Formats: sequence, C-alpha cells, structure tokens
Amino acid sequence: MNSSGEAAPAIDADRVLADLRDLADLTAGSEGARRVCWTEVWESARSLLRERLSEIGVDDVEIDEAGNLWARLPGRDRDAPALAVGSHLDSVPNGGPLDGALGVMAGLGVLRAWVDSGGMPPRDVVLIDFADEEGSRFGRSLFGSSALAGTLVPAELAHLTDAGGEAIADVLAGHGVELARAPEAAGRIGAIGSYFELHIEQGPVLESEGLPCSAVSGTAGVERHIFEFEGQASHAGTTPMDQRRDAGLAAAETALEIERIAREHGGVATTGRIDLEPGIITAVAGRANLSVDLRHPESEPLALMHEAALAAARSAAARRDCGFGTSLVWRIEPIHFDARLVGMAEQSVAAAGGRETALASGALHDAAEMARHIPTVMVFAASVAGISHAKEEHSTDEALRAAIAAYGDLTSAELLG
Amino acid sequence: MNSSGEAAPAIDADRVLADLRDLADLTAGSEGARRVCWTEVWESARSLLRERLSEIGVDDVEIDEAGNLWARLPGRDRDAPALAVGSHLDSVPNGGPLDGALGVMAGLGVLRAWVDSGGMPPRDVVLIDFADEEGSRFGRSLFGSSALAGTLVPAELAHLTDAGGEAIADVLAGHGVELARAPEAAGRIGAIGSYFELHIEQGPVLESEGLPCSAVSGTAGVERHIFEFEGQASHAGTTPMDQRRDAGLAAAETALEIERIAREHGGVATTGRIDLEPGIITAVAGRANLSVDLRHPESEPLALMHEAALAAARSAAARRDCGFGTSLVWRIEPIHFDARLVGMAEQSVAAAGGRETALASGALHDAAEMARHIPTVMVFAASVAGISHAKEEHSTDEALRAAIAAYGDLTSAELLG
Repeated sequence: MNSSGEAAPAIDADRVLADLRDLADLTAGSEGARRVCWTEVWESARSLLRERLSEIGVDDVEIDEAGNLWARLPGRDRDAPALAVGSHLDSVPNGGPLDGALGVMAGLGVLRAWVDSGGMPPRDVVLIDFADEEGSRFGRSLFGSSALAGTLVPAELAHLTDAGGEAIADVLAGHGVELARAPEAAGRIGAIGSYFELHIEQGPVLESEGLPCSAVSGTAGVERHIFEFEGQASHAGTTPMDQRRDAGLAAAETALEIERIAREHGGVATTGRIDLEPGIITAVAGRANLSVDLRHPESEPLALMHEAALAAARSAAARRDCGFGTSLVWRIEPIHFDARLVGMAEQSVAAAGGRETALASGALHDAAEMARHIPTVMVFAASVAGISHAKEEHSTDEALRAAIAAYGDLTSAELLG
Repeated sequence: MNSSGEAAPAIDADRVLADLRDLADLTAGSEGARRVCWTEVWESARSLLRERLSEIGVDDVEIDEAGNLWARLPGRDRDAPALAVGSHLDSVPNGGPLDGALGVMAGLGVLRAWVDSGGMPPRDVVLIDFADEEGSRFGRSLFGSSALAGTLVPAELAHLTDAGGEAIADVLAGHGVELARAPEAAGRIGAIGSYFELHIEQGPVLESEGLPCSAVSGTAGVERHIFEFEGQASHAGTTPMDQRRDAGLAAAETALEIERIAREHGGVATTGRIDLEPGIITAVAGRANLSVDLRHPESEPLALMHEAALAAARSAAARRDCGFGTSLVWRIEPIHFDARLVGMAEQSVAAAGGRETALASGALHDAAEMARHIPTVMVFAASVAGISHAKEEHSTDEALRAAIAAYGDLTSAELLG
C-alpha cells in the first residue's frame, strides 16, 4: 500500500518465467537463442509478444521510426509523463534465453499486473522492446535506444553490411525501418518520465556473493581500440633472435601490460583478439593487431587506463623496433543512473533479499542511452557462472523471482510512491 | 688444375644469372614467384630447364617415382658413384626468384661447364631438381628428397588436401606421380657418391658480416608444436579481473618466455601464430592456440629448449587456471653435413672471399634429407636484408658470383681432387 492507500499490483513471476520458456520454445535452436535483430526469428519473437499483449487487452502497439516496439497501457492521467519499462528481444547468434528477453517479459508482467488488478495506473505505462540492442548483424549495438536518445547518426552506419554483404539500409527496409529516418524516433522520448530495465548481470559478482539481485548504479565507460604493431616478417629458422622485429611479441607484451593496468586502476581490460601476419608457424610476425577493450565506471580512471595502455604499447613497440598505430573502434563515457531511482531500487532489492548497494554494470544496456535524457535505473538478476551470450546462459528461478519481485516493487513505488 | 694436371672447368656465372632471369620472366607475376609444385607454372619452369639441358646436349633426363627430375651428364667411369648437384625449382606462392632456383641453375652451370670445356667428368654428374621442397600446396615439405632418403610415408600424407579441397594423390597423379609408389625413388640413392647444394642464406647473418657466401655445416633441428590453452570465455565488461581464466594471456606469457628460452640456449624460437576463441573484442579468450617453432643446430640444447617451453606453458596455464595440451606438428633432428666436405667447402668459399667458417642453416633444405645417407654439403649466398619467401627476395650479383665461384670450385675439387 502506498501513502494514498492504493494497492501496488505485484508481477506474476510464474507467468514471466512461462513467457520466457515459450519464447525459447518458439525461437531457440540446439545451439541457443537465434533472435538476431532484423531476421524472421526476431519477428517471430515479436509476434509472440504481440499475442501476449493482445491477451491482456493492450492493443496500443506501435513500431517507431527506429524499429522499437511500444505497447501502451493507459493511465488515469494521460498527460503525465509515462513510466517506461522494457529491454530488447533481440539476441546474439547462439545466445541465451534471458539476455534482453527477461526485461521485456518482466515489463509485460508489469502491464499484466495492472490489468489483472482491475485498476488503472496513475499514469501511462509503456513497454518498449528496443530494436537491435546487440548489433549482431551489422556491428552497431544500442541501435533503437540510441535513436531514441538522439545519438544515432545514420550516415555513420550507411556503409555497414552483414556477413552476406547485404547493406544495412536494405535489410532494415525489409523490416519497415528507413535508416535515414530512424533519428525521428527521438521525438517520443519527451513523453517518458522515467525508464526501468530488468536484466541479467551477465557476470559472476552476484553469484560469488551469494545474492539473487541488485540495483545498478550505471554503466561503465568503454574505450575500444585496435592497437597496430608493424615490425618485419622474417624466416623463423634463419633470423637470429637479436635481428628480429617481432610485432607479435610486442603485442603479447602489451596485452599483459593492459591486464596490469586494469588491476592498477580498478577497471577491467580485455584483449580478445590478436591477429598476426603472415600468421604462419614458420615466420616471425611482421604485423600484429591487438583488440583492446577498457572499461571503468568513472571517467577519470578510464582516461588514465587509456593513456597507460597507449604508453605501454608505444614502449613495447619501441623496444622491438616496431611501428605503432591505433584506431578507435568505439567509445562511450560512463553513464550514471538517476540517484533517486538508484536509492529506490536499492530499497526494493534489499526487501527482496538482494544486494544492499548497487553494482556498476560493465556491460552496455539500452538504459545507458535512456539515461542521457530521463531518470533511469536497472535491476540485475544473478547469472550462473557469469555466462552470457551463450546457450549455457542461465539464472536460477530463485534469483529470477527475487529480481522480478524487486523490479515490480520498484515500478509500483515509482507509480504510487 | 688438380693433382693429376686436369683442368677444372669453372661455372659461367653470367649464364646462371641469365637463366634465373629467364625463369622469372617465364614464371613470375607481379606478386613474385609462382612456381608452386604440382601446378602448370611449376611444369613450365621444368620445361625451361629441359630446354637448357637439351641445348647443352644433356638428353638423359628422367622423372623418378617421387617426381624428382634427374639430368645425367655421363662421366668417364660410368660405374663410379655420381656427384649430385641441384636443389628445387618449386617455390612458395608470392615467393622470390632465388630460393631453390639458384641451386638448380647453378647445378645446370656445373653440367654446362663440363660440356663447354670439351672434357668429360671423371664420373657421372647428375643434376637433381627435387619435387616439392616447399610443401606449399599440401603442407608437406621436402617431399621428393625425403622419398629419396626413405623417410616419406605415403600413408601419413594420404589425407592431405589443398586449399581447394583436392586430394594430394589426385593432384600428384595429374603430374605423373603415384603417391603410394613415391618411396620407390629411394632405390636411386645408392648410385650417388655425394650431394652439393647451392642456396641463398634466407637470413641476415652473412650480409651483417659483410660477406658474400659461406659453407654450411648442417641444418638445425626443429621442434614444431601447437600449444593449446583452455580457459573460460567470458564477457569483457562483466567479468572482474580476478575471476578470469584468460587463455589468451596465458598464451601471451608463454610466447614471451619462449623468446627468452631461445636466447638462453643460443637457438631460435618463434611464435608465428596465435588463435584466440571466440576471438572477438568483447570477450575474454576461452581458448588460445599458439604455434611454437624451436630450432637449434645441436640435439641436446634443442631438447632443453623444448622442455623449457613446455614447462613455461604449463606454468602460465596453471597461474591462470587454464588447461594445457600440446600437439606435435613436425620435428626433425639436427643434421650435420659431412665433415670432409664442409672443410673443402670452407676452403672454396674462403678462396672466393667468403666466410672462413661454416654457418649452421636454420632453414631446412633437400640437403638435410640427402645427408642422412650420403656425404653432403651446401654453400650459401648472402641474402639482402635476410628476406626470402617474398617477392623482395634478393641477393647482390656480387654475392651470387662469389657463391657460384665457390660452388663450382668445390664440385671441381670433389671430382678432380
């Protein structure tokens, strides 16, 4: 009960779990989730969502200019800013059943709770299923949410093609989205008052702490670069050790330094890819490209990590008489969620047996784009073994129930508190 | 003049250089040599060789069961063991004009010198153009020479296919070679008394010493392995540094240790290839395969290098909670050339202004297989910048002339001395 004595309807967690199972039955294969955005399977996932919305009488369902799906449950005050809930149905190839889908089905649960309660929320509640959070097909993640946030620049994407060579604009057109007009979706954000997203942690922290869920304080900033070393390819048998210019070893030294730098600054840093040329067993590597992904919840240490990584790479290159260059893949600054909402989420989570203080998210989420303009917060459900983006992705029913309870309580508090 | 007063005909170096130019004109493209074994271009290289042999009246030309070409210049004593000279016309794709071809054209020069002198060598001189020294198409190098040496096991090669999926037996059959019968070529080795091969160094040692040529004392032993690390793939953003099992960093540490081990033991060691899985910028590597190529001219230090590399890899894997396995790619023991012939070659080389003492070869050559059974020696010509297996492969005319002079002097000394 809130201060006005109004009942706060709770999400039916069993229904959420059943909806997730139905979604997997409909769309997953033996190698996991296949809800890659801009595909038939993704459209079939959306069809299931539309069926479920229709069952609870939510008929106000639209697709915006960026391909985001909006389902609106009218509130008593139609002019007040809406509460937005949601996440994304799209997945990576060979992904898991929960990433994105949990937040959409929990958002559906919020709408269902109000409908089933027979009451009407004080203001509109909208469920948003964002388009192409993963960017699996064209490499641009947060597509729909960045369009909403005004950070999507179609000209920067126009050259993208999928693995089969199809142009992004052609593929999107096949799903009713005109790439050049996607930014027009931003016109809708003014009518939203706050945005709440439930998601799996995708990491091992909550499980290692024995906790089912947590509030999320924001998303880490990311610096993503390719470090390029240029030495001299030469014969593995005939080139004395002291006459080598081994780009691969300069890269190996840099990868180890980058790990040290992450520990020193309390962030995370990853070298997920090393490409050597000519890349054969009998040749010293003449070129080496190293992927570098640096993350930190705060701007200043992130900048220091980036500087230190560059210095380490330049130093390793110089020691081995190699050239060095770097190219930016992508960067985003740290995003802090709304302090008031984070505090409320911590209370709801604590009441559900979760973590007392919020975690920072190392992964990006649609919430990061939403938080640029409107008060936003997230709730995490604990992941088993921290595995995500794989068919083994899993959370215990206990963790999901606690997280759904906290998420439902939070939305009720925001609407009624 | 030798002790019997007989004239020793000298190789016409200008003709050797002209033959090499003609070969390149006929077979090379804008990206370098294309004389890959078991191809049309390789056959056209052999056609040029046959033309040149025909021009000097050498008509005894045969292809043996392993595809090696034998051209025989009869000597006065037809029953005495023949002197064999040669190398291989086949090249890597995008290779250089000298690797292998120099030794074949210089061997042709030996035959031509005797023909032009009007004399007859004391015993038969045979030019051997070995088949598939490089192993470029099917990955098995020293094909023809190992057949001659009795170390080729067709059953071990039967599964090999080229990049287009063609089976080795089918491709060889198209060039008149029956894979299963290739070992029958070994019957010919008994009639050879010694084998001399001229080759480019393919490394930077002679150039850095300012010397045009050297004798070769033998070929280094090689241990070639894939080291396999198995950790846990995980999300680059959500996996804390202290909960990672990063197989890529275990591999990076090992690559650096392997370099240290080579320096410690006076050998060479190379990591030319690192493959990470999943191999994407946003994931900690769950698997890493590292190619390891270790070489040393002596068996004992080579074995110590191999042991130390394994220990370093196991230690790096253990520190990062990764599994470790290893698979053998190929190994060959160090081969020492015949001491008497190495001494003779040092004298001929010194007389031509080359290195006073022999170098060990870090690269493999057909001579390594021949040396298993018959007295063998090689002469190296200095390479510019140590570059080989590339279109930039080059040696100065001065170095080539000195090396050809030494090589010619050596064959004369062996035949007449």
